[in-house]
Amino acid sequence: MKLAVRRSDLRVPGFLFSGVACGLKDDGRKDVALIFAEKPAAAAGAFTTNRFAAPPVSIGKKRLASGRVQAVLVNTKSANAGTGARGLARANACCALAAELLRIPESRVVPCSTGKIGLPLAWSKISRGIRAAVAELSPKGLWDAAEAIRTTDAFPKVATRRISIAGKTVTVAGIAKGAGMIHPQMATTLCYILTDADCGSPVLKRILTEGLAESFNAISVDGDTSTNDTALLLASGASGAEVTAGARRRKLGRAVAEILADLAKMIVADGEGASKVARVTVRGARTKADADRAARAIANSLLVKTAIYGADPNWGRIACAAGYSGASFDPARTTIEIGGIVVAKAGETTGKAAERRASKAMRGKEFDIAMTLGAGQHAATILTCDLGVDYVRFNSDYSS
Amino acid sequence: MKLAVRRSDLRVPGFLFSGVACGLKDDGRKDVALIFAEKPAAAAGAFTTNRFAAPPVSIGKKRLASGRVQAVLVNTKSANAGTGARGLARANACCALAAELLRIPESRVVPCSTGKIGLPLAWSKISRGIRAAVAELSPKGLWDAAEAIRTTDAFPKVATRRISIAGKTVTVAGIAKGAGMIHPQMATTLCYILTDADCGSPVLKRILTEGLAESFNAISVDGDTSTNDTALLLASGASGAEVTAGARRRKLGRAVAEILADLAKMIVADGEGASKVARVTVRGARTKADADRAARAIANSLLVKTAIYGADPNWGRIACAAGYSGASFDPARTTIEIGGIVVAKAGETTGKAAERRASKAMRGKEFDIAMTLGAGQHAATILTCDLGVDYVRFNSDYSS
Repeated sequence: MKLAVRRSDLRVPGFLFSGVACGLKDDGRKDVALIFAEKPAAAAGAFTTNRFAAPPVSIGKKRLASGRVQAVLVNTKSANAGTGARGLARANACCALAAELLRIPESRVVPCSTGKIGLPLAWSKISRGIRAAVAELSPKGLWDAAEAIRTTDAFPKVATRRISIAGKTVTVAGIAKGAGMIHPQMATTLCYILTDADCGSPVLKRILTEGLAESFNAISVDGDTSTNDTALLLASGASGAEVTAGARRRKLGRAVAEILADLAKMIVADGEGASKVARVTVRGARTKADADRAARAIANSLLVKTAIYGADPNWGRIACAAGYSGASFDPARTTIEIGGIVVAKAGETTGKAAERRASKAMRGKEFDIAMTLGAGQHAATILTCDLGVDYVRFNSDYSS
Repeated sequence: MKLAVRRSDLRVPGFLFSGVACGLKDDGRKDVALIFAEKPAAAAGAFTTNRFAAPPVSIGKKRLASGRVQAVLVNTKSANAGTGARGLARANACCALAAELLRIPESRVVPCSTGKIGLPLAWSKISRGIRAAVAELSPKGLWDAAEAIRTTDAFPKVATRRISIAGKTVTVAGIAKGAGMIHPQMATTLCYILTDADCGSPVLKRILTEGLAESFNAISVDGDTSTNDTALLLASGASGAEVTAGARRRKLGRAVAEILADLAKMIVADGEGASKVARVTVRGARTKADADRAARAIANSLLVKTAIYGADPNWGRIACAAGYSGASFDPARTTIEIGGIVVAKAGETTGKAAERRASKAMRGKEFDIAMTLGAGQHAATILTCDLGVDYVRFNSDYSS
């Protein structure tokens, strides 16, 4: 069951949350979030593969190895990346302070940072923020946490599901941050999924990996990630619904995957300055890798993105992007559809009337771009957004 | 000797040129160019590897196999790509008409098209254009040809050199078209280099390949090209200066490489809506491929490009792009310079004062971005331009 997201619904038994403002952001908005499990939660995580990965990422990776996490501490404004040994010491100091205040071992605290690279994390502010975040922990604080992890996000991103497993009600809730999806790799994505299902770390790892493959990894891939990307899945077990394998795991996995997909879509829709979301699907590819390559080339093409912005059914730009993607195909066997309208067949236009109808479809907030390569059976889908004037305005003035 | 490009200088003995308007462009600008060698010229070519390569590209490739070319016919407005069998027939018909009027074999005519993909080439207009282009051939027509091959170019691109080989004066002149360099792969690039040196096709092939490696291929690579990219090098032999190997070949090669570099730089500077050029150099890479990968990731990063636009010395975006490029390095051994100012060392900021000085350098029309990876001895340089609001305005309204 998909829930309308009301603040009062946002409880996940076994977890407390908070989001506070400590002055990291200049404008008084919330900037530190804390997720706390009353008992150590089973946990799984996925992290950026960027060579410039931030110190909190390296700490988080190590802590996830135990499969148990009790607190997740997130700050914005500084990514604490490109900050060297001092950045690592600062991240550890944050964890130590949180652990002390929460009376848990430091090794159970995962730190996450997002914001500007190279900017040291201000200790006087973050230490005040950690104290406030611990003091304000509440079962109802998830919305505040979602607010606090925002950087350039136009809106907080929250998704929840309630499912029944073995006669028990299980809650799954997720929050995420991310925008700037002009290229998938440009956004730092943070994503936290919490559930009160009772399951072990290996089950969570599998569910998270499968869920990410069809959601966040369809907007952002290994090797194509920011310095701080992190996704965590924590299970408190408070529902008493045990999940190990079979139908129960599939059901929980589906709920997690749906929440990840909801959050990923919100991130694309929140592309800095973006006004539309297009779902790019490539079918009939010779291999899965070819499908992926062609879909990404189309989704990342700036000429395609500006055409989306201008509702211009310029299928030649789509064909050209597929053509340079490295995917193997014969143009004479391709078909291109925009908004369900076939605008090119056998590599040629289907006429002005079709283009006019496609242009109309492109004026909507959401539509599909589909290309069939006629080279095999494989398919891939990537979400993308338009490239508008506002993106440029926004990003040319970020750190100044 | 580098020549100031005056129209009267633009003669290459052995060649005639023209550029005419036949109504392909709506606004009356020149849209058909013809390059004619009085005797069959030795020739070498490089073509796009895009799977959606246009019919004229496939014809041109075949004709270059003989190593002899006598006429190059270029039209704008329609790329004659995504036009199937009819597009191929149309391209052949253009060559046949030109050959008939020029009284040369059709197999000596190379056709080139640039413009919108999927738009059929209007026969009534192009046939009129071919007649006019043949009628207006002149030794002084190179500037007109450079005008006529423009599509979205803000200015025509011409470069010339005069060198002395074996006591004889040898002229090398080049024209090119291309803009929209927000991503290298987005622009159709056409480039024609003419010389009156006397040399065979294999020598030209080598000179062209070497010259492209450091110029056009540093802004555009195999597999990363538009449907129509073509570069041709023709030699009339009219100077009587024979060039086969050794110092003579190196001298001619240097002149050709310089012209290619000049033209490539003009193309980057003419990025649609671009206002600045940055030279991105990566040094100290473990392999040449790593250097190239990192330099391209930085040069193509939209966040770097918008930072260039805003004169924002945001080195974290540079570090992040290198980090996801796939190049192998240790952040703690990296250095980043902007406009000659070290803004990050050992993966950390060098302070606000350096950033302010770098920002000042970024306000110029041209500056360097350099990153040292500390992983080896290899280097690569890629030219890039800023991403401004005008690019988006321009490209969201191209075909409508």
